[in-house]
Amino acid sequence: MDIAIIGASGYAGGDLMRLIALHPDTELTCATSRKLDGTLVSKDQPHLKGFVDINYTNPDVDKVDADVVFLAVPHTVAMQYAGSLHSRGIKTVDLSADYRLPQPIYEEIYGVSHTAYFEAPYGIPELHRDEVKGSIFVANPGCFPTGAILAAAPVADLARTIIYDSKTGVSGAGDTVSETTHYPNVADNINPYKWTQHRHLPEMQLEISRLGSQASVHFTPHLVPVTRGILTTAHIITERPVTTDEVRRRFEHMYRNEPFIRLQTPKLGHVRGTNFCDIAFEVEEGGRRIVAVSAIDNLMKGAAGQAVQNMNIICGLEETTGLLFPAATP
Amino acid sequence: MDIAIIGASGYAGGDLMRLIALHPDTELTCATSRKLDGTLVSKDQPHLKGFVDINYTNPDVDKVDADVVFLAVPHTVAMQYAGSLHSRGIKTVDLSADYRLPQPIYEEIYGVSHTAYFEAPYGIPELHRDEVKGSIFVANPGCFPTGAILAAAPVADLARTIIYDSKTGVSGAGDTVSETTHYPNVADNINPYKWTQHRHLPEMQLEISRLGSQASVHFTPHLVPVTRGILTTAHIITERPVTTDEVRRRFEHMYRNEPFIRLQTPKLGHVRGTNFCDIAFEVEEGGRRIVAVSAIDNLMKGAAGQAVQNMNIICGLEETTGLLFPAATP
Amino acid sequence: MDIAIIGASGYAGGDLMRLIALHPDTELTCATSRKLDGTLVSKDQPHLKGFVDINYTNPDVDKVDADVVFLAVPHTVAMQYAGSLHSRGIKTVDLSADYRLPQPIYEEIYGVSHTAYFEAPYGIPELHRDEVKGSIFVANPGCFPTGAILAAAPVADLARTIIYDSKTGVSGAGDTVSETTHYPNVADNINPYKWTQHRHLPEMQLEISRLGSQASVHFTPHLVPVTRGILTTAHIITERPVTTDEVRRRFEHMYRNEPFIRLQTPKLGHVRGTNFCDIAFEVEEGGRRIVAVSAIDNLMKGAAGQAVQNMNIICGLEETTGLLFPAATP
Amino acid sequence: MDIAIIGASGYAGGDLMRLIALHPDTELTCATSRKLDGTLVSKDQPHLKGFVDINYTNPDVDKVDADVVFLAVPHTVAMQYAGSLHSRGIKTVDLSADYRLPQPIYEEIYGVSHTAYFEAPYGIPELHRDEVKGSIFVANPGCFPTGAILAAAPVADLARTIIYDSKTGVSGAGDTVSETTHYPNVADNINPYKWTQHRHLPEMQLEISRLGSQASVHFTPHLVPVTRGILTTAHIITERPVTTDEVRRRFEHMYRNEPFIRLQTPKLGHVRGTNFCDIAFEVEEGGRRIVAVSAIDNLMKGAAGQAVQNMNIICGLEETTGLLFPAATP
Repeated sequence: MDIAIIGASGYAGGDLMRLIALHPDTELTCATSRKLDGTLVSKDQPHLKGFVDINYTNPDVDKVDADVVFLAVPHTVAMQYAGSLHSRGIKTVDLSADYRLPQPIYEEIYGVSHTAYFEAPYGIPELHRDEVKGSIFVANPGCFPTGAILAAAPVADLARTIIYDSKTGVSGAGDTVSETTHYPNVADNINPYKWTQHRHLPEMQLEISRLGSQASVHFTPHLVPVTRGILTTAHIITERPVTTDEVRRRFEHMYRNEPFIRLQTPKLGHVRGTNFCDIAFEVEEGGRRIVAVSAIDNLMKGAAGQAVQNMNIICGLEETTGLLFPAATP
Repeated sequence: MDIAIIGASGYAGGDLMRLIALHPDTELTCATSRKLDGTLVSKDQPHLKGFVDINYTNPDVDKVDADVVFLAVPHTVAMQYAGSLHSRGIKTVDLSADYRLPQPIYEEIYGVSHTAYFEAPYGIPELHRDEVKGSIFVANPGCFPTGAILAAAPVADLARTIIYDSKTGVSGAGDTVSETTHYPNVADNINPYKWTQHRHLPEMQLEISRLGSQASVHFTPHLVPVTRGILTTAHIITERPVTTDEVRRRFEHMYRNEPFIRLQTPKLGHVRGTNFCDIAFEVEEGGRRIVAVSAIDNLMKGAAGQAVQNMNIICGLEETTGLLFPAATP
Repeated sequence: MDIAIIGASGYAGGDLMRLIALHPDTELTCATSRKLDGTLVSKDQPHLKGFVDINYTNPDVDKVDADVVFLAVPHTVAMQYAGSLHSRGIKTVDLSADYRLPQPIYEEIYGVSHTAYFEAPYGIPELHRDEVKGSIFVANPGCFPTGAILAAAPVADLARTIIYDSKTGVSGAGDTVSETTHYPNVADNINPYKWTQHRHLPEMQLEISRLGSQASVHFTPHLVPVTRGILTTAHIITERPVTTDEVRRRFEHMYRNEPFIRLQTPKLGHVRGTNFCDIAFEVEEGGRRIVAVSAIDNLMKGAAGQAVQNMNIICGLEETTGLLFPAATP
Repeated sequence: MDIAIIGASGYAGGDLMRLIALHPDTELTCATSRKLDGTLVSKDQPHLKGFVDINYTNPDVDKVDADVVFLAVPHTVAMQYAGSLHSRGIKTVDLSADYRLPQPIYEEIYGVSHTAYFEAPYGIPELHRDEVKGSIFVANPGCFPTGAILAAAPVADLARTIIYDSKTGVSGAGDTVSETTHYPNVADNINPYKWTQHRHLPEMQLEISRLGSQASVHFTPHLVPVTRGILTTAHIITERPVTTDEVRRRFEHMYRNEPFIRLQTPKLGHVRGTNFCDIAFEVEEGGRRIVAVSAIDNLMKGAAGQAVQNMNIICGLEETTGLLFPAATP
């Protein structure tokens, strides 16, 4: 299958290209970058030397053609491409936020008008596999929501309050330099940001409520001195006392056939560079708080990896194709 | 004043020696270490070369004499010294856990019998200055409780539930090597531990209740790839909606005269090596969650710094003596 | 092919298992560990869950059977297995130091008697491919020598003096905890060690002289706050002035067909988890010093990756089988 | 004494303000910043809250008045102030490169014309104390040269070739964000730069030759994932075989009365935040190579600390005033 990546020069784009190179059924035929139009990809991303041998291009929206298109561009840019791709029936995985939320919520949270809205499945396959399967356009979830939702999903309906305290690696901020990502500001520090109102919160709230939960959902992210990975600690206050056995059964049941969920102590080093989400939990004495923790690679299960997983599904391939490899640990 | 440090070879001991060297009114006359008896201190801790020129010794408990004694030994070891020091009327700051909790709670949590119990003030001067002032023996608080309690104290009585999600640097684990502190296990990882029942939790619960709060208090610590510092994110679910103004007034009022509390964005780099505790908060829209965050240096305000602060108080010195210096940032 | 790994529980063992799991022609049938005999491998190395489903065993030396055996044990332990494997004609790649040096040099440097000496090719395929091809037993080079030798090989005969200043990640010290690898001792530090006489130096000297060089070779390693990777800066003082063009031609010529050598700016992040060695150089004005720098992953091209490369060669497989994948960068 | 800092908002400026706050004889009366004119210093540098209570200003060059002025501005900017300060007889320590080199070398290396040249002592007090003492304007050395020169000075005249392989923390690049300092580009990497021709090399060459050495001097810096500190490994090829004893005597003699030189294993953590330079050496078997290693804090002995040391000297104060405090280790 021919693959096009719109916005290939960023970190998610880089990991998409890595995965496409490893995938047995795909060939990268188009990698766009406005800024680097004409540059050899492997000159910009030297770790891909020998694996990606094309130049970045900057084609017109309507001329992008491929069997599958990945939109790895910022929100509001994705919607400029999506309409054309959708109407031309081209299979698309959109890594931006543009199709993750109902239009009114999207417009409120992102403060813009949506100029090409249509409904798309929210591409966490573990929760919405059937919807994704029947679609040609998938809204790939945010990195924080992926880890957060998967950590709490099996017990969401037991929760009164869910507080997500997330710790994210710096690659989540992208490859654009800023005060926030200046090494001396990050190293030896733990920096909370958007303490009460991060844009990813509505995705979490929506998905938790779709799981039949009445819980109020809260979220505070922290930037940590790590390059890749998100560890999310879900503090779940329950409506009634729960037991460890009961909770374990729920986790084991929900994820019993999931190829990318591993119920084991979450450690960023164990998922780095991979599409796995490792999850474990502990029930506080008395049964009124569950602490569930998930570890993902923000660029993989949190972006490019899940996008390829979604591509596999909408293309009728085995869902794990090109994605089953372990982390290089330590 | 002559100072003795029992258990000087650890990290807290090292910082105590650094502070004693900087303090205008103190002289270190005794630094004990069972393991390093006879060794020059600055051979073991070369950063103190030129500042500490004595050898470690290993004296009998009853022979330790000084104007002030710091106990920087593990729990259960401190109580072996405390009785003798107390009965001899020697001013003592105990950095261990042995006198922080009422005897029954201590014995349950630490799983040992207390062989020399007496009551001692809990040495967070910001909350118990008067008690400390009238004492000759102070129980220096745990590192996690210090940051956690100070973050929530001004609004504790408004809380229904307080969830402390703490991120601690590795020096909190001491200088003893272990799997936990092996570099490849720490770097690029965020490791939660004792997810629901850390020994420091009862100190937090006790202090929060002493503040007139009915809140249930929960605590999950995480080891982060940082050497010094604890950042504590206090997720405070309130009993009733609160406003930002109301919360601000409470913080400003409680800490208006506190020399070591700074109400500003908490960043580990701004408190590293110092006795400061930087605190800020944000009220979630709707007023039902306060996120209060504190940053301390776990070896300073979380151990040696606060111990010297307590020493200053019980010795009738200006409380800030020898402790007013800014961090070397970045 | 059935694969046995003797000493599978260490870091090199872990990466060998990762690579065997990815390799299309191999199956891991035996992973030994004295300490963890009977333990499920993926319980010890959870990142391999789903990829390695056997238990560690601890068989007698003579009972180890497989198509290929990897010896990932310390020096002096490898020789206990090597004789039996060699005499039984079992293809073997030895990651220890036991067969890298001529017997007298080995015995002097390692201070032990060699009890099962025979000659084995020094397995840097870029320099000794033909010798390796004709063998059933390969001495896999040390991590430092691999990066150091490859950096200078094309210009070794021009050199009067070669000073290798290497910077290694902490995984090179293995998974055994020590003061050296205690996080607070590593983070924010750069620690030189064995300033003038590291055991890997004779491998470098021998290989440089085999390249027809008269140069005196020196080596100082540094431990750096990085988990994986070795960056080696080769300061090469030349016998006569050289030009950039001349040096470039030599590098391009020697490595023109090498699948794992990439002549581009060396960056640890670009080789992490892979078998690549990235090399670049600069000639100082005047032409009397060449600075050549190489980057490898110490556990891959410096250990497990090169071992699999050697396995491919001695088994008559395409040399790159199972090893051609890019790094997950950043 | 009233102190003015021109260019106070950078990292060196920050450390200067920290030191001025700690110094018993100085008061900061002027801190300039073009960009932050009018802003409270402690709003920009919150770790100084409670220690620096003035606003940044942006005065005319000729209106800057104080007992001592520190120029903490980039090269070419310093010379705009220097002429006026010098002619008005105001004691000045210039942290820029503008007065470190003879005019022709300066103009060649920095590619600009010097518009206000005069001679100034090169402010490494350990080598030029008397010259500094008699001056009112001191050229504060570069961070790399300070550590490099001090490491080799005692044996410079024995050297045929000196290769400095330096590893610097990221704060050396300043507080301006860039690709170079973007966290994911630094973490887990060791990045050599300006492999053969860094601007600091001529300072090293000049000082080594002033020590009576004929050695050729070479320098390759590396950016390492550390915030503060420079570790310099000096590989010194000697003209004749030397002995360890001989070299030790030279180090001990040259630095016997130096308050900021400590002859002990250099470790960045032991000098962080301080003005110390820790140095050790090892002689290679055969006596033809000396490896001498120094550790400094690049912002302290490499910038602000040495600047205050120079200020103390030109003001007739005890040289160590305000600078004698140990590092907070770990």
